Amino acid sequence: MSYYERHIFFCLNERPNGEDCCALHGAKAGFDHCKQRVKEAGLAGQGKVRVNKAGCLDRCAGGPVAVVYPEGTWYTFVDQADIDEIVDKHLAKGEVVDRLVLSPCIGR
Amino acid sequence: MSYYERHIFFCLNERPNGEDCCALHGAKAGFDHCKQRVKEAGLAGQGKVRVNKAGCLDRCAGGPVAVVYPEGTWYTFVDQADIDEIVDKHLAKGEVVDRLVLSPCIGR
Repeated sequence: MSYYERHIFFCLNERPNGEDCCALHGAKAGFDHCKQRVKEAGLAGQGKVRVNKAGCLDRCAGGPVAVVYPEGTWYTFVDQADIDEIVDKHLAKGEVVDRLVLSPCIGR
Repeated sequence: MSYYERHIFFCLNERPNGEDCCALHGAKAGFDHCKQRVKEAGLAGQGKVRVNKAGCLDRCAGGPVAVVYPEGTWYTFVDQADIDEIVDKHLAKGEVVDRLVLSPCIGR
């Protein structure tokens, strides 16, 4: 097993000149909520789950986005309820949340 | 296959109060060099390789560190030659660079 069982990265990039990006669509709030919920659920730590900030993941058109490894599952989210579902199902139990999965056609 | 065949994240966190961290050990230079070499090698893009900044990966004692997914292989590195080897072997061909792999015992 890898050092973390599941590792989620949130795009928190801020593009210059006010260009559209995850940061303008609640990415930071989603990250903060995820971090807190993972901690409260006792999921954080080696052999368990790590929640990280990342630079631009280059899928801006789907923003805000996050990716879960090792599965390589990409998500988009709107509110805290979406994050809760990703934490409670995918990060805790490995169940993909189909309704929030980003289409493979969505790129920059 | 996931959106990227391989996704490498470099810890570029800067800890407050001058505490020891990856940023004080050439993390940014390693990231910059990796990004450039991946681009020059034609490896960058969807279905190929993505090089990203990340916040603290919480393995500070091994810093500077980077992790490659989906394999979940953790590396430490000293200079550009180390990065070149990670790019040319692991990111390009999926071959783990054993001599740079971080011990699973190394944490924060």
